[in-house]
Amino acid sequence: MAKIYDRVALIGLGLIASSMFWAMKRGGLAGEITGYARSDETRRTAREIGLCDVVYDDINDAVRDADLIVLCVPVGVMGEVMAQIADAVKPGATVTDVGSVKRDVIDKVMPHIPEGVHFIAGHPLAGTEHSGPRSGFAELFDNRWCLLVPPSGTAPEPVAKLRSLWEGMGSNVEEMDADHHDLVLAVTSHAPHLIAYTMVGVADDLGRVTDGEVIKYSAAGFRDFTRIAASDPTMWRDVFLSNKDATLEILGRFTEELFALQRAIRQGDGAHLHDYFTRTRAIRRGIIEAGQDTEAPDFGRGGNARK
Amino acid sequence: MAKIYDRVALIGLGLIASSMFWAMKRGGLAGEITGYARSDETRRTAREIGLCDVVYDDINDAVRDADLIVLCVPVGVMGEVMAQIADAVKPGATVTDVGSVKRDVIDKVMPHIPEGVHFIAGHPLAGTEHSGPRSGFAELFDNRWCLLVPPSGTAPEPVAKLRSLWEGMGSNVEEMDADHHDLVLAVTSHAPHLIAYTMVGVADDLGRVTDGEVIKYSAAGFRDFTRIAASDPTMWRDVFLSNKDATLEILGRFTEELFALQRAIRQGDGAHLHDYFTRTRAIRRGIIEAGQDTEAPDFGRGGNARK
Ligand SMILES: NC(=O)c1ccc[n+]([C@@H]2O[C@H](COP(=O)([O-])OP(=O)(O)OC[C@H]3O[C@@H](n4cnc5c(N)ncnc54)[C@H](OP(=O)(O)O)[C@@H]3O)[C@@H](O)[C@H]2O)c1
Ligand SMILES: NC(=O)c1ccc[n+]([C@@H]2O[C@H](COP(=O)([O-])OP(=O)(O)OC[C@H]3O[C@@H](n4cnc5c(N)ncnc54)[C@H](OP(=O)(O)O)[C@@H]3O)[C@@H](O)[C@H]2O)c1
Repeated sequence: MAKIYDRVALIGLGLIASSMFWAMKRGGLAGEITGYARSDETRRTAREIGLCDVVYDDINDAVRDADLIVLCVPVGVMGEVMAQIADAVKPGATVTDVGSVKRDVIDKVMPHIPEGVHFIAGHPLAGTEHSGPRSGFAELFDNRWCLLVPPSGTAPEPVAKLRSLWEGMGSNVEEMDADHHDLVLAVTSHAPHLIAYTMVGVADDLGRVTDGEVIKYSAAGFRDFTRIAASDPTMWRDVFLSNKDATLEILGRFTEELFALQRAIRQGDGAHLHDYFTRTRAIRRGIIEAGQDTEAPDFGRGGNARK
Repeated sequence: MAKIYDRVALIGLGLIASSMFWAMKRGGLAGEITGYARSDETRRTAREIGLCDVVYDDINDAVRDADLIVLCVPVGVMGEVMAQIADAVKPGATVTDVGSVKRDVIDKVMPHIPEGVHFIAGHPLAGTEHSGPRSGFAELFDNRWCLLVPPSGTAPEPVAKLRSLWEGMGSNVEEMDADHHDLVLAVTSHAPHLIAYTMVGVADDLGRVTDGEVIKYSAAGFRDFTRIAASDPTMWRDVFLSNKDATLEILGRFTEELFALQRAIRQGDGAHLHDYFTRTRAIRRGIIEAGQDTEAPDFGRGGNARK
């Protein structure tokens, strides 16, 4: 794979940034990769594990000569981080981000993008429930989608170059409109996360069933919820606050449907339940056929793929 | 491992029964294992794959000489299946079941248990989203809990024997009261399943996001929900209808909490969200420490255990 950017700066050194680092190194996609993280501790860890060719204590030093700057911080601080580095970004450079929400990030970042600098919003649809500089790995983006959201009027060359980078890191790239992105993600990711957090919170609160019992007897279903609900609190707080409208819309529909199913249970309407559960099976089949998951049953032992 | 029962009859030949068959064979726990399934097709498949030493077309033939009869059918038909076999069960035999709900099954089965026959309700906390005679495997119960619910007054010897069988199949066995069982499972399994079904249904219904997009971009979180929501519709309809009260109680609390979180999102109350999400992390830690799941991140490729 050929080198795509001479110098890439990663701002924020968590799961996504560290995975990008290892993926770019694997593919030889960047000359030098610099990095910056807010805390001493993260910068120290990064140096210790060789995450980034140089880790800077000053965010502007990391950014100064970069051809590509990737904002890998929680969506709630994208705007202020961009404001901080605006003067250091060199003309002709591209700024992108990896935030899970796009409309709000674009609205907050765009005003700080200097004349002559390209901003192309992005979002790799890949993640785990882990976070921090040690959690990344080169394969995270392999065969996963990366959605790019170039604001209207973006020149085609910088978009094509960023696309090549993501393809080099293993992703399939598509362009999407910001609002549609936020609605799609509200359905496939944001609302499900809030629901999982809620269910785990309910279990934790229930007086008559101890946390010990919940943990001990956590069955399929709940176990998956706890994994989702173990995701980083700051990242997810920011996601919900910045994708407020779409998330609330989906949760509103969810609540309506849940009420209908609760009514069916209360009234003993087995046909309604059976029909509903039959319909949802088809979606699963589609996901397996699309290669987004495997058919191996998950019975909670990690890596126990059968058949 | 020594033989525990001379003759075991499996009634219903789906995921749980077939897993029990292979687990009993692995451990040499039973002399002869007979089986019966409702449909010709399942009986044919069972014979084809060697599931059961003998598969009978008549349910009473399967039961007649058995020392242990295991009801492995959906919870909604446990009572009628027991009524059907009541005359064929031999005196001194033990009847047990594997249903996911206990109070309702006990109430429906007990009246048909003949004098001199022991009934000990049971529930292995192990499963996958697959069903049918081909879905079972010997390891399903390894290191999983099996909860036994002996009705008050049950003699201790048959309980000890059934416990040995489950231990021989790899399970850790505990006894529990029926109502408490149903509440614990409503929290750790039944409510989460209904919620997953609901969320997948909402995604399917949403006009502005196509099913194709939902499938294509299904991210962590939603992917887990679709797996849960792919579970057998009949089994789950029966679970919700027979554990109505506990399920509705938990769903009521869930809805309350979800409203509070929705309000926090609407009002931009980040502290509320952050606190909530921080609390739920602790539960995950407990589950990993209890060995109920692994720490390997799941990024949707099945068996991709890292670190
Ligand atoms: N995790 C996922 O599954 C996933 C998937 C796709 C996209 N994303 C998006 O990717 C971005 C990063 O997520 P991640 O999972 O990589 O997070 P992470 O592992 O928690 O890392 C976040 C990084 O941002 C830094 N940071 C936090 N607040 C900051 C601030 N106020 N100023 C400067 N730096 C700050 C942190 O620095 P310290 O370490 O010094 O605190 C840390 O290095 C988020 O926008 C998220 O929405 C995440
Ligand atoms: N799946 C899980 O994760 C899980 C976990 C723990 C406990 N359980 C419990 O285990 C029991 C069996 O579940 P499973 O997953 O093994 O189900 P399954 O794979 O769907 O198999 C169910 C079996 O029951 C038979 N059956 C269905 N309706 C019947 C009727 N009216 N009369 C006679 N037989 C009938 C079916 O026969 P045909 O094949 O001929 O239709 C099939 O052989 C259920 O009570 C469930 O609650 C399930």
